[in-house]
Amino acid sequence: MTVGIVGAGQLGRMLALAGYPLGVDFLFLDPARHAPGGQVAPQIRGAFTDRKLLARLARRTDVLTFDWENVSVAALRKLPRGVRICPPVDALATSQDRVSEKRLFERLHIPTTRWRPVDSETDLLRAVREVGVPGVLKTRRLGYDGKGQRVLHAPRDVAGAWAELGSVPLLYEERVPFDHEVSIIGARHRSGEVVVYPLNDNIHAQGILRVTRAPFGSPDLQRRAARHLRRMLDHFHYVGVLTIEFFVHRGRLIANEIAPRVHNSGHWTLEGAVTSQFENHVRAILGLPLGSTRPLGHAAMINLIGRMPEARTLLATQGVHLHDYGKSPRPGRKLGHCTLVEASARVRDRRARRLLAKLAPDIRIP
Amino acid sequence: MTVGIVGAGQLGRMLALAGYPLGVDFLFLDPARHAPGGQVAPQIRGAFTDRKLLARLARRTDVLTFDWENVSVAALRKLPRGVRICPPVDALATSQDRVSEKRLFERLHIPTTRWRPVDSETDLLRAVREVGVPGVLKTRRLGYDGKGQRVLHAPRDVAGAWAELGSVPLLYEERVPFDHEVSIIGARHRSGEVVVYPLNDNIHAQGILRVTRAPFGSPDLQRRAARHLRRMLDHFHYVGVLTIEFFVHRGRLIANEIAPRVHNSGHWTLEGAVTSQFENHVRAILGLPLGSTRPLGHAAMINLIGRMPEARTLLATQGVHLHDYGKSPRPGRKLGHCTLVEASARVRDRRARRLLAKLAPDIRIP
Repeated sequence: MTVGIVGAGQLGRMLALAGYPLGVDFLFLDPARHAPGGQVAPQIRGAFTDRKLLARLARRTDVLTFDWENVSVAALRKLPRGVRICPPVDALATSQDRVSEKRLFERLHIPTTRWRPVDSETDLLRAVREVGVPGVLKTRRLGYDGKGQRVLHAPRDVAGAWAELGSVPLLYEERVPFDHEVSIIGARHRSGEVVVYPLNDNIHAQGILRVTRAPFGSPDLQRRAARHLRRMLDHFHYVGVLTIEFFVHRGRLIANEIAPRVHNSGHWTLEGAVTSQFENHVRAILGLPLGSTRPLGHAAMINLIGRMPEARTLLATQGVHLHDYGKSPRPGRKLGHCTLVEASARVRDRRARRLLAKLAPDIRIP
Repeated sequence: MTVGIVGAGQLGRMLALAGYPLGVDFLFLDPARHAPGGQVAPQIRGAFTDRKLLARLARRTDVLTFDWENVSVAALRKLPRGVRICPPVDALATSQDRVSEKRLFERLHIPTTRWRPVDSETDLLRAVREVGVPGVLKTRRLGYDGKGQRVLHAPRDVAGAWAELGSVPLLYEERVPFDHEVSIIGARHRSGEVVVYPLNDNIHAQGILRVTRAPFGSPDLQRRAARHLRRMLDHFHYVGVLTIEFFVHRGRLIANEIAPRVHNSGHWTLEGAVTSQFENHVRAILGLPLGSTRPLGHAAMINLIGRMPEARTLLATQGVHLHDYGKSPRPGRKLGHCTLVEASARVRDRRARRLLAKLAPDIRIP
């Protein structure tokens, strides 16, 4: 069986590496030379939106999936009817539009931030009045890693924010004074079976995920997050891996966004869980039984951003697992990650702090 | 960095899959179409003995290594001097010749079977007289998975055995009435650092490994096996992973053979140890720090031979990890393996027995 992956970034690369042991082959579609995925599997070079190339990818594979969510939904909808696409295109479409996403959270009774759609400066003024400050003005589409966002601290920030982002449809939402940022990741099989990983505790800086620790939180928090995730999965008759990011404020979960794919905050599952998020995505989209999500210990994942530390230095620390995505360095670019799995959260945190002091001294683990 | 691998079988495939996360690239040399390794990395198609192709492989890579040990030592010795070859060619040469291997065991004071070289029927008669029966007549070269072997139960078997195998140089050795067959696997860094995995308990049938369980045996047995392994590694100034197989008889270790490579009995380390044998081989040959060999539980590895069971059926058992090598089925051929890692040896054995009942009802776990 062959899986077609639209996008050959690091997520696609890790999907292929996790799928090979199952005897699965992979084919990527991506415009980039030297794409991380294209280094480990064949790649069709071309635009994600090229209908001919998408159709060729579909013809040569048994199922289509995605390495990132900003794929052209219109192009996918024009593919011949028989083509299997996992996750469902509706989930992709929702995740591409923050307004649809917010409306869906509300419809499914998943608590989210207060928000307003913004299509004019007047809209924005009213939104700021109704939602309050501080708040965040975001583009409705094509936001990732904190791009296309601007924080408003006072009503006087409206003009500047509008000048900066006002050329595209926007959304304004309250800025939640969170205690933690968490995410929950699960996989759904077409039979309706769902498996859910333990909650991830995420530390961001400048909108980019820097550190994840898991498992996180009380059994009650886990249960509530998993319930929200299941509701979202069932809503779409989803097949594959889905992620929801939440803020936690005074023990309450407030949904921030969904990602209809494997997620950076789940990279620790490669060494830290019985079955990784990547393998479970491949299993789900091929209709294979889902694997156990049981954690093997207390994991910390540290993103390697902008500059790749020497493998020699990293691996000298016992128990560090390195994942180098094969990308050329660029400021702010995710080049790899490393993971530690320890028997206790205390030891994990102590060792992660020591690693961070070398790799990213600006990041603090509370 | 790029690693050149001579042979693109399942061992090479798993080396590549373990090395990709370290940011390493791979290039295979193998005559086969659809070779397991060639499905996950580029491959030069041609004979292992082709000096021009070996030289091309060496030019395009930073270090040469092997997927199997029956590579032409003569061809390797003719490569330009600057080419890095790991493990050392001397270790390959020794492992290819059972007589050199036996002599080395004796020289390094590693207990082995009683044996005699056999180059004529007269030699064989004398060997049987001196060593006794039962014994095994083996070809000096190119034996693997029990091929090129014949058991002699009585002196009257000499004529038949000689008629069958006598066309090539041979060796006759006592057949040890063993309680267990075990193997020990370790890696050596060029700095002299050595890491050793826990002992493997191996179950063979018709000369083919069927099941491995690890860790096995007392701390004392582990210590003795590790001491033998270290002596062998140091002797060769070895770089990479080396395996020694032993019989255990009344608590004594009796060396059977060495394999200068990652080994089928170490496949459990992919999920069952902090760092797999494959990753440690890649780390060693690239001069990277070696990783921890600590076991994560009690592992059982079952070889999938001749016929591949449906992935669907296998993965329906929670915690089963599947490794499908992408080979076409053929009786007696190793097509894949699966692994279980459990918190106790008792649970591991119970679950492995249940799996074996489906996969290989002829194999019993004691």
